[in-house]
Amino acid sequence: MFVYADNAATTATSRTAIDAMLPYFDKIYGNPSSLYEVGQNAKAALEGARERVAKVLGCTPREITFTSGGSEADNQAIRSAAAMGLRKGKKHLITTAFEHHAVLHTMKKLEKEGFEVTYLDVHHNGIVTPEEVAAAIREDTCLVTIMYANNEIGTIEPIKEIGAVCKEKGVLFHTDAVQAAGHIAIDVKEQNIDMLSLSAHKFHGPKGVGVLYARGGILLENLIEGGAQERGKRAGTENVPGIMGMTAALEEVAAHIDENAAKLSALRDRLIEGLETIPYAELNGDRTHRLPSNVNFCFEGIEGESLLLLLDDKGICASSGSACTSGSLDPSHVLLAIGRPHEVAHGSLRLSLGEDATEEQVDYIVKSVKEVVEYLRNMSPFWKDLVSGKRPHVFKEFVKG
Amino acid sequence: MFVYADNAATTATSRTAIDAMLPYFDKIYGNPSSLYEVGQNAKAALEGARERVAKVLGCTPREITFTSGGSEADNQAIRSAAAMGLRKGKKHLITTAFEHHAVLHTMKKLEKEGFEVTYLDVHHNGIVTPEEVAAAIREDTCLVTIMYANNEIGTIEPIKEIGAVCKEKGVLFHTDAVQAAGHIAIDVKEQNIDMLSLSAHKFHGPKGVGVLYARGGILLENLIEGGAQERGKRAGTENVPGIMGMTAALEEVAAHIDENAAKLSALRDRLIEGLETIPYAELNGDRTHRLPSNVNFCFEGIEGESLLLLLDDKGICASSGSACTSGSLDPSHVLLAIGRPHEVAHGSLRLSLGEDATEEQVDYIVKSVKEVVEYLRNMSPFWKDLVSGKRPHVFKEFVKG
Repeated sequence: MFVYADNAATTATSRTAIDAMLPYFDKIYGNPSSLYEVGQNAKAALEGARERVAKVLGCTPREITFTSGGSEADNQAIRSAAAMGLRKGKKHLITTAFEHHAVLHTMKKLEKEGFEVTYLDVHHNGIVTPEEVAAAIREDTCLVTIMYANNEIGTIEPIKEIGAVCKEKGVLFHTDAVQAAGHIAIDVKEQNIDMLSLSAHKFHGPKGVGVLYARGGILLENLIEGGAQERGKRAGTENVPGIMGMTAALEEVAAHIDENAAKLSALRDRLIEGLETIPYAELNGDRTHRLPSNVNFCFEGIEGESLLLLLDDKGICASSGSACTSGSLDPSHVLLAIGRPHEVAHGSLRLSLGEDATEEQVDYIVKSVKEVVEYLRNMSPFWKDLVSGKRPHVFKEFVKG
Repeated sequence: MFVYADNAATTATSRTAIDAMLPYFDKIYGNPSSLYEVGQNAKAALEGARERVAKVLGCTPREITFTSGGSEADNQAIRSAAAMGLRKGKKHLITTAFEHHAVLHTMKKLEKEGFEVTYLDVHHNGIVTPEEVAAAIREDTCLVTIMYANNEIGTIEPIKEIGAVCKEKGVLFHTDAVQAAGHIAIDVKEQNIDMLSLSAHKFHGPKGVGVLYARGGILLENLIEGGAQERGKRAGTENVPGIMGMTAALEEVAAHIDENAAKLSALRDRLIEGLETIPYAELNGDRTHRLPSNVNFCFEGIEGESLLLLLDDKGICASSGSACTSGSLDPSHVLLAIGRPHEVAHGSLRLSLGEDATEEQVDYIVKSVKEVVEYLRNMSPFWKDLVSGKRPHVFKEFVKG
């Protein structure tokens, strides 16, 4: 059986998205900045896409900037808020300890430039509270940036409430919604969001294209200088095919968001219950305030990489931590942020289901993970120490059995 | 007849490039950072593409960074050289007055940050000399950036010789080769190039993807912070389909570069000779040191926009200035840089032929431009002033007849 259970890393581009792209490669291929028909038709498609994306997100087309992806959107949002803050002498930013590195590394760079950053605790359940955000906001705070849903453990933050706090205090609020899009209905006005980042390839659009929503009145700083594309805020010939594919994919996931969420939540819970029968295993992050697609477990005595390779042998695609940091030997900063000790934070398994997942697949995953965990533990000197009592266990034997 | 003669603005994506992309949308769609097979296959393709691009350019795969396009590559190259310079107290950069705005606007930003920029004269023929570059280099020069071929008038700069000067003086040399790629054989080592930018959609690859070549030893600064992709120098999930399409397109144009250049040069010269029979018209830029695809004319008394719209009615896609600045009412900075007066710099016509161009198309363009220029001049009060002698002509009546 082949089960692609790493949809948080990337998704297969949907037929709808591919079909939406194809005409723009070699038929309506004109540069949207051109005056002749083949260029103006591309321009019309581009501006149509902007309207369609705006409609899905509940904003106006002028508030949409197309980028090369979620990381670029995150960088530009934060840089823009910091520049606006700087002009008013406000040099304090608020985020959480478990954001994506596109946010955290930008914060580190801003710290070097003289900004001060507060990293909010996300607690054991992986959720920050609006009250904590309110308490952290200072006179000189220029931005709060908190992800909509975490990319590793899938916990969903109280975005609307945090946005309300920021609105009341007059502080800009950005959310990295890269993982949320396609799973949670987003309405930026209703949810009090000033800036938001999306990445097409996380919701069955193509790689290399994303969205930065920025509320009217927010002055964007260019990361890329040059031509006057995107109202002068993002230079470079527009990726028209990519944008058309992304737009079609976004509309498609938005149209089926409730039914997919219901279906996936049931499968997710079945998967969690199945994996909880493995001894010394624990779910990471809140059990219910999490993406309908996301399951993330730690298994004592297990190295993430070996687990993944053996699951791959069984046809299961999964990940340990996020794809963006998979080259790293460090434990997951997300798992450390929710209080997992180092020896456990190395052994996590993230399973992120696609809309076409089935009960049969879920049961196959459970069976396979059980087998692989048992096999690896039998080979592990570390596990023998745990069993013999030489080392104390971190988890209880059976969370649920 | 339909003639797409704006290949300098963008090209139709070739069948080869589309076919190279397609499997990576929904078959080998894995995230290259993933450990399982569908991800590792994408990774292998990506690294294979890097080797293939390196082979075409004459460098090593490690010297290739994939970007979202030429503008991003230009920005990153210049920012990186400036940062390296700053660490050594070198705050002087050299460029030309007629670079692409991705270069010029980055320079303007660096000037605001305390850098000093020398803008070299490009003379009436649109060519800077290596001697002038040598004379401009100072003790505190950290970068020379000069485009390989100009995007409006197509003039080709003496890149190898300029590179030799920079090498001798120990100054980094970057070239924006966005317009040259596909028309001129590039070998970065042989041509003494330290950094080079490419954009896939200018050589029949897809939009939204490009290349930054940076010689080993050059420390790139991130424009986009986040994941560890591209050796940590360009965050964001890699646009694998786009990169595969670009690579296939680059190999294809490289394989046919001599035959295409020979064919297009002949057509270009036929087009120039045809347009020179129009009174009060002049070719912009050197007649022979120009891209085989590029023809750029000024016609006295003609507004560029009206000319383009009437040519579009006749099925001819052309442009006035570059696509990136087409929204602007300013005269072309390129034409001003080669000494065209304001009243003429508004009325230019750029025709950039594709590899499939024919003599029949060229003759149709000549006939159509003649008709449109005559029609527009007959309606123009400005032209009447010229004819009646109220205003002096800028150009001679017949450059060639």
